Amino acid sequence: PDNFFLIAGPCVIESEELLDEVAGKVSAICKRLEIPYVFKSSYRKANRTSAGSFTGIGDDKALHLLRKTGDKYHLPVTSDIHAHDEAAPAAAFADILQIPAFLCRQTDLLVAAAETGKIVNVKKGQFLNGPSMQFAVDKIKKAGNDKIILTERGTTFGYQDLVVDYRNIPWMQAHGVPVVMDCTHSLQQPNQTSGVTGGNPQLIGTIAKAAIAAGADGLFIETHPNPAVAKSDGANMLRLDLLEGLLEQLVKLRKAVI
Amino acid sequence: PDNFFLIAGPCVIESEELLDEVAGKVSAICKRLEIPYVFKSSYRKANRTSAGSFTGIGDDKALHLLRKTGDKYHLPVTSDIHAHDEAAPAAAFADILQIPAFLCRQTDLLVAAAETGKIVNVKKGQFLNGPSMQFAVDKIKKAGNDKIILTERGTTFGYQDLVVDYRNIPWMQAHGVPVVMDCTHSLQQPNQTSGVTGGNPQLIGTIAKAAIAAGADGLFIETHPNPAVAKSDGANMLRLDLLEGLLEQLVKLRKAVI
Amino acid sequence: PDNFFLIAGPCVIESEELLDEVAGKVSAICKRLEIPYVFKSSYRKANRTSAGSFTGIGDDKALHLLRKTGDKYHLPVTSDIHAHDEAAPAAAFADILQIPAFLCRQTDLLVAAAETGKIVNVKKGQFLNGPSMQFAVDKIKKAGNDKIILTERGTTFGYQDLVVDYRNIPWMQAHGVPVVMDCTHSLQQPNQTSGVTGGNPQLIGTIAKAAIAAGADGLFIETHPNPAVAKSDGANMLRLDLLEGLLEQLVKLRKAVI
Amino acid sequence: PDNFFLIAGPCVIESEELLDEVAGKVSAICKRLEIPYVFKSSYRKANRTSAGSFTGIGDDKALHLLRKTGDKYHLPVTSDIHAHDEAAPAAAFADILQIPAFLCRQTDLLVAAAETGKIVNVKKGQFLNGPSMQFAVDKIKKAGNDKIILTERGTTFGYQDLVVDYRNIPWMQAHGVPVVMDCTHSLQQPNQTSGVTGGNPQLIGTIAKAAIAAGADGLFIETHPNPAVAKSDGANMLRLDLLEGLLEQLVKLRKAVI
Repeated sequence: PDNFFLIAGPCVIESEELLDEVAGKVSAICKRLEIPYVFKSSYRKANRTSAGSFTGIGDDKALHLLRKTGDKYHLPVTSDIHAHDEAAPAAAFADILQIPAFLCRQTDLLVAAAETGKIVNVKKGQFLNGPSMQFAVDKIKKAGNDKIILTERGTTFGYQDLVVDYRNIPWMQAHGVPVVMDCTHSLQQPNQTSGVTGGNPQLIGTIAKAAIAAGADGLFIETHPNPAVAKSDGANMLRLDLLEGLLEQLVKLRKAVI
Repeated sequence: PDNFFLIAGPCVIESEELLDEVAGKVSAICKRLEIPYVFKSSYRKANRTSAGSFTGIGDDKALHLLRKTGDKYHLPVTSDIHAHDEAAPAAAFADILQIPAFLCRQTDLLVAAAETGKIVNVKKGQFLNGPSMQFAVDKIKKAGNDKIILTERGTTFGYQDLVVDYRNIPWMQAHGVPVVMDCTHSLQQPNQTSGVTGGNPQLIGTIAKAAIAAGADGLFIETHPNPAVAKSDGANMLRLDLLEGLLEQLVKLRKAVI
Repeated sequence: PDNFFLIAGPCVIESEELLDEVAGKVSAICKRLEIPYVFKSSYRKANRTSAGSFTGIGDDKALHLLRKTGDKYHLPVTSDIHAHDEAAPAAAFADILQIPAFLCRQTDLLVAAAETGKIVNVKKGQFLNGPSMQFAVDKIKKAGNDKIILTERGTTFGYQDLVVDYRNIPWMQAHGVPVVMDCTHSLQQPNQTSGVTGGNPQLIGTIAKAAIAAGADGLFIETHPNPAVAKSDGANMLRLDLLEGLLEQLVKLRKAVI
Repeated sequence: PDNFFLIAGPCVIESEELLDEVAGKVSAICKRLEIPYVFKSSYRKANRTSAGSFTGIGDDKALHLLRKTGDKYHLPVTSDIHAHDEAAPAAAFADILQIPAFLCRQTDLLVAAAETGKIVNVKKGQFLNGPSMQFAVDKIKKAGNDKIILTERGTTFGYQDLVVDYRNIPWMQAHGVPVVMDCTHSLQQPNQTSGVTGGNPQLIGTIAKAAIAAGADGLFIETHPNPAVAKSDGANMLRLDLLEGLLEQLVKLRKAVI
C-alpha cells in the first residue's frame, strides 16, 4: 500500500466529548495526509498495575460511545479485550479486536477473538520475539480467521525499562501479516514504585520514524488533548496538537522508503 | 516454620495412574523428611506456545482426579486457572489456586480467585520485579482474602533465556507473604523455533539450593517418572527418582539457614 | 550537514589488495552519492573471543598500508586501539582513533587517545546507556580534545544477542557530538559455543534505515568482497557488491529526514 | 576443600591505617572460622565512571603498602591491573592478579598477567556467560599458566541494574578452575545520572548465601570500617563490623553443602 495506516485515540474511553474531539481532529488530519485511520480507545482497563486505578465508565456505555464515534466520522474502531467472554460483546461494536501483550499466549482468548470474524490485532508479549508470534498467528488461522495484525510494543529490558527491537518488524512481517509499531506503550517505564507506569513521550518521534524506516505497515499512537489529566497512560500519550506535525514528517519518510 | 514446604507433581493431569504414582511416592518422601507437601497438577494448559500441543483430558475429569488423589494421600492440592470464570469451578476441587505468571496483572482473575476464599498463589510475571508484586497482593486483599503466596519463576533475559534473580525472594517476602521458588519453569528456554519450550533440568539442584539459602519458604518442582514422554514441560521436569536425594540435601541446607 | 557520513572497510587489514579493492570501490560510490567517507580497517584485533583467531599481519606493516590506502584515494582513515601505548603510534598513521566498546571506561586509554589531537571515536559499551557516555566525553575534553564521535553498537540482551536501542541516538547527540550507528557489530550474536561470534547480515538494511530515520549523523558498515573468507567478523560484514544499493536507499531516506 | 576462601578488603588503597585495620580484623575473624583469606585492595582505579573520581595514592606507594600489609598478617594479597604493562610491576608485590570484568577479553592483558606466573583471577564480563569464559581460561593456559580463578560479578540487566545468574557457578567450574562470587560488585546499580554507581548493600547476605549453596569455591567481599566515607564503591561495601556475623552464617551453610 502507498501509505502506512494509523491506529490512534485516547487510551481509555473517558467521555463522549473526549472521543468526539480526538476522532474529529485526527480524522481531519488523516484525510488530508491520506493516512487510513482506525479510531482506538479502550472500553475497560483490566490489567492496571494498581487496584486503585481507573478502569472505565462501564462496558456497555463505553462500547456504544466507541461505535457512535466511529459512525459519526466514518472510521473503523478498535478496543482491546481481556477474556474469552468479552470477544463476542466487543465484536458487536468494534471492527478490530486487540489482544493485550500479556495475553498473547492465551489460546482461549485468541480463539474467541478469531471466531467473531473481526480483524484480530495481537500485541507481541514483552517476553516474546517476533518469530514466536507465528504461534499466535497459527492459533487464529486454525480458528478460521486470517484477518490478523501483529503489533510490536517493546520488550522487557531489565525491570524498569522496555526496548524496541526493530528486527521484530521484518521478523513478524515474515508471517504474512501487517505489522504495527505501538509508539506509546513501547516507551513505558514499568515497575515504578508508585504503581503508576512512567514514560518518555519526547521520544515518540524517534520510535515512530525508525519504525517507518524499518518498514512498519502501521503505527499505533495514543493521543489526548491534555495527557496530564488523562485517566490512563498519561505518561506516554502524545499531546493531540503535536500529532499533525509528526504525521507530516512520517508521510514524507514513508515516501522515501517504499 | 521449621522446614520449607513443597509444591510438586506432574505438569499436567495425564491419567489417574500418573497422579497416583507421583503423589504416592512424593508424599512418602515428604513424610519421612517432614516437608509439608502440596500436590500440584494442571487440569488444563491454556497458554501453550503452539496450538497443536496437548491441553488436557477434559476439565471435569481432571479436577475430579486431582481431588481424588489429594484425598487418597491426605494432601492439599493445587492447579492453575486462566480466566475469571474458572475460579469457582476449580475452587470446588483445589485448595490453592495458582495464577500463571503471564496473567498476574489481570485484575478480574485475581479478584475471582480471591473471592473463592481459597489460598491464591500468584506467579511473578517474567516482566515484573518483586516489589511490583505488591499490587497483586493488594488486589487480592482488597477482595477480602489474605491467604496469599507469591512465586518466583524467572525473568525475561533476552528472548531465549530466563534468569532467576534471588533478590526477589526478600523483596517479595517484604509483602508479608510466603515466597516459593519455581525450580522448573525458571529453567525454561522460551522462544525456540520449534514452538516447544526448552530447558536445563540438570540445573534444578543449583536453583533449588540457592533458593533455600536465600530464605525461600517453599519450592515448586514439577516431577514425572519419565519426563521424556510427558505431555507438557518434559524439558524441565525432574525425574521422579531423583527427587528424594535432592530433598535430603535441601532439608540439610534449610537447617543451616534458619 | 546535508548528508550522513560513512565509516567503512574490511574488519581487519588482511592484505594491500583487499584494502585497495574496498577503498577504490567504496570511495567511487560515495563520491557519486556525496557521502563523506572514512576508510576503516583494524591493524590488530586484540580482543578476539578465542586465542586461536587471526589478530593481524603485524602492526607496523598494517598501519603503513592503512595510510597508503587513505593517501591513494584521498580518504581519512581510522583504526581501533586497545591500550594507552598504542595511541601515539596509531595516531602517526590514522586520522580517527576508535576506542572499542569494552574499553570505553578505561580512563588511561581515553586520555592517551585524546592527547594525540586526533578525532576520538568512542563506541558505547554494551553495558552502558547513552546518557552515561557523557563521562567518556568529559574525560576526552578534560584532556584537551573536543573532536569526539560516539558510536552505538548494540546493548547486551541476554547472553547470545544484542539489541539496538535507538533512544541512544538522541541521548548521545545531547552530549553535543556526532553519533554513528555501527550496523555491523550491532548484529553480533555473542557467546556462541564455537568461540566464533555469529550474526544476522540480512538485517543490516533494517538497522541502517532505522538509524538514519532516528537522526544518526554517520553509519559504520564493515564490508568485504567475500565475507565468507574474511579473517574476522565474516558473519556480519556486508558483501561489497550490496553496498551501493543500500547507500542509495539511505541517501533518499536522509533527504526525507532533514 | 573443606571451606570456602575469602578475598576481602577495602575497594581502594586509601591509607596504611585503613589497610592495617581491615587486614587485622578480617584475618583474626578468618583464622577463628578457618577461612583461607586473601587481602584485596586496588592500587589504582583506572575505569571510574567519572574523570573526577579518586584513582589512588600513587601506584608505587600503594603497591608497597599492599605487600607490607600482607607480610604483617601473613596473607596473600591481590589487586587488579588494567593494561598489559601493569602486569609485571604489580606481580612484584601481589600474589594474585585480578583482571577487571570489562577487560576479560583483552588477550594482551591476559597473556601479560599469565606470564608473571602469579595466580590470575579473571572477572566474567557483564556481557558474557559462564561457558564463554573458557576462552579466557584457554588464553592464560596457552601462555603457560594454569593457576586460574574465575569470578562472577553480575550480568547486564537493562541499563541500571545487574543480575546474578547462579548457573554461571557450575558453568564456570566446568572449566576446571575455582569460582568466586563477587558479592560487592554484583549489587552495583550502574548508569546513574550522577556518574556515581549505586548499590544495594543490604542484599550482600542474600547474594553470598545463595553462592555458597550453589557451590561457589570462594567469596569476594569489599569491606570498610565506614563505607559512607570510602573513596570508591561506598554504595556497596559491607560495613566491617557486619562481616563476622555474615561469615559465621556462611560457614554453617558451607558445612551443609559439602
